[in-house]
Amino acid sequence: MNIPTYEDMLAAHERIKPIIRRTPVRTSDYLNDLTGCNLLFKCENMQEPGAFKVRGACNAVFGLDEAQAVKGVATHSSGNHASCLSYAAMKRGIPCNVVMPKTAPQAKKDTVRRYGGVITECEPSTTSREATFAEIQAATGGDFVHPYNDPRVIAGQGTCSKEFMEQTDGLDVVMAPIGGGGMVSGTCLTLSTLAPETQIIAAEPEQADDAYRSFKEGHIIADDAPKTIADGLLVPLKERTWHFVSKYVSDILTASEEEIIEAMKLTWKHLRVVMEPSSAVPLATLLKNKERFAGKRVGIIITGGNVDLDKLPWTKGV
Amino acid sequence: MNIPTYEDMLAAHERIKPIIRRTPVRTSDYLNDLTGCNLLFKCENMQEPGAFKVRGACNAVFGLDEAQAVKGVATHSSGNHASCLSYAAMKRGIPCNVVMPKTAPQAKKDTVRRYGGVITECEPSTTSREATFAEIQAATGGDFVHPYNDPRVIAGQGTCSKEFMEQTDGLDVVMAPIGGGGMVSGTCLTLSTLAPETQIIAAEPEQADDAYRSFKEGHIIADDAPKTIADGLLVPLKERTWHFVSKYVSDILTASEEEIIEAMKLTWKHLRVVMEPSSAVPLATLLKNKERFAGKRVGIIITGGNVDLDKLPWTKGV
Repeated sequence: MNIPTYEDMLAAHERIKPIIRRTPVRTSDYLNDLTGCNLLFKCENMQEPGAFKVRGACNAVFGLDEAQAVKGVATHSSGNHASCLSYAAMKRGIPCNVVMPKTAPQAKKDTVRRYGGVITECEPSTTSREATFAEIQAATGGDFVHPYNDPRVIAGQGTCSKEFMEQTDGLDVVMAPIGGGGMVSGTCLTLSTLAPETQIIAAEPEQADDAYRSFKEGHIIADDAPKTIADGLLVPLKERTWHFVSKYVSDILTASEEEIIEAMKLTWKHLRVVMEPSSAVPLATLLKNKERFAGKRVGIIITGGNVDLDKLPWTKGV
Repeated sequence: MNIPTYEDMLAAHERIKPIIRRTPVRTSDYLNDLTGCNLLFKCENMQEPGAFKVRGACNAVFGLDEAQAVKGVATHSSGNHASCLSYAAMKRGIPCNVVMPKTAPQAKKDTVRRYGGVITECEPSTTSREATFAEIQAATGGDFVHPYNDPRVIAGQGTCSKEFMEQTDGLDVVMAPIGGGGMVSGTCLTLSTLAPETQIIAAEPEQADDAYRSFKEGHIIADDAPKTIADGLLVPLKERTWHFVSKYVSDILTASEEEIIEAMKLTWKHLRVVMEPSSAVPLATLLKNKERFAGKRVGIIITGGNVDLDKLPWTKGV
């Protein structure tokens, strides 16, 4: 199994720096008072395509040799990987095919199309997604860039924590949401070398807690078609992300749908950034476990900001 | 009439720097493509109390001598000046009394109270506001910090453009919304010395276009109780802001309510920041006048981010 190294992450950062943004780190006195800790938010929602996944996508796309590049890339994704891979392919001027569940938010489909990605829809289950994708890839010859179980992608996501440590004076804890585990694995990859004393805590919706259960049981457990408002976190761990999660993550905490919505609204209101429900899961779990984080410097990665503004979770029935 | 000078602005910046944030400048490739110009957004919504008005408020509060400071400050405001003055007073540990129209958004009242400000409500008209305020000031002895017609406030607001020019490589145009004209006057104060070649364009709702009509007629025209979703822009020009507006502003452009809402939503979606309707007026007017700005480097000041998330203008009937 090809596991990316710290040097792969450093090479990724050099490769993608000209294309991605060095996103800002934001703070809120209000949220610090509320939680009793020193929160630093790394705003990956402020990447041009609105998510951290542009890092891994750019690392994969810009690392292709010319012969493969003309055939382009292909992937399946619940949303942000699709738009970010399309964005990366557009930046290099190569084709991008994506298989996406038909239930994915309209805002995410619109974004993929805006960046020139070609969408093929599938049923909202891992099984259907993978079968549909096999057909598409056979037809196009596009290089498969898995949303997270790809060493190039994990190395790319790891560049976020490198910047985060450069932008802060050290962190006691870094928290990130966990779905397939791409961002968490990249965080593990980087911090296990750069800041091994920093705890890595993953946060997951109760209603899609396969990573939590995997972590407690000691082997990968996958759900088929879980349901949560945190639509970026529906997918299961795979062997490469399990490698990092099982080895370097200190704990996985979970939060209910209501807690996620409340944390999302708190962040919109006091940090004044637009972020997705998935990105609110770390703060939601922290608010439930305040004593554990009291007085600590906690870095939270705001993973994405692509939201359907006409369907906000606190404006029911609209 | 006491008109603040460039040196007053420089002194204000030294005074308030330790308390306020040097807010980030953000860009969006999408909005650049849409408008055909190079847009740079100065995010004053990311001040801790969510608005540029913390600059003028801090300059006034931290400039008080000890004898006056113990009596505190007092003001009337449609919202953000009230919360920002309360914030500044809290930071210095002195009292703050505010008169606020009873129609002001709940979110803004909550913020004032969170910062220890004491609210007295009045009718939503300039006349009622000023009468109620006279009573409060007589009772408390608080130093009157007018929301905009105060040299300390104008000098404080001018520090925003100083940072903006430091953070960018020069701008062809700076745009800001205009209500009473505090931010626009501060911008004029700073740029007329620091970057006299930079055009200053003010943006106003059609439904509260008293500054536009004043500008065209050559003297102050005041509305009593105009109605617009841009609730930060309801107040009229006063003599000090008229001084700057009439002398240094290149033009005032207006936009309809629908255009303001559309620009607000565009910014939330593509810049991924939470901003108020008032802050969307510059982009709304720019979108109507694209040819005028084509190819230019346009700085837009996002003036505030305090929004009632339960009553967003595009989720009607909620």
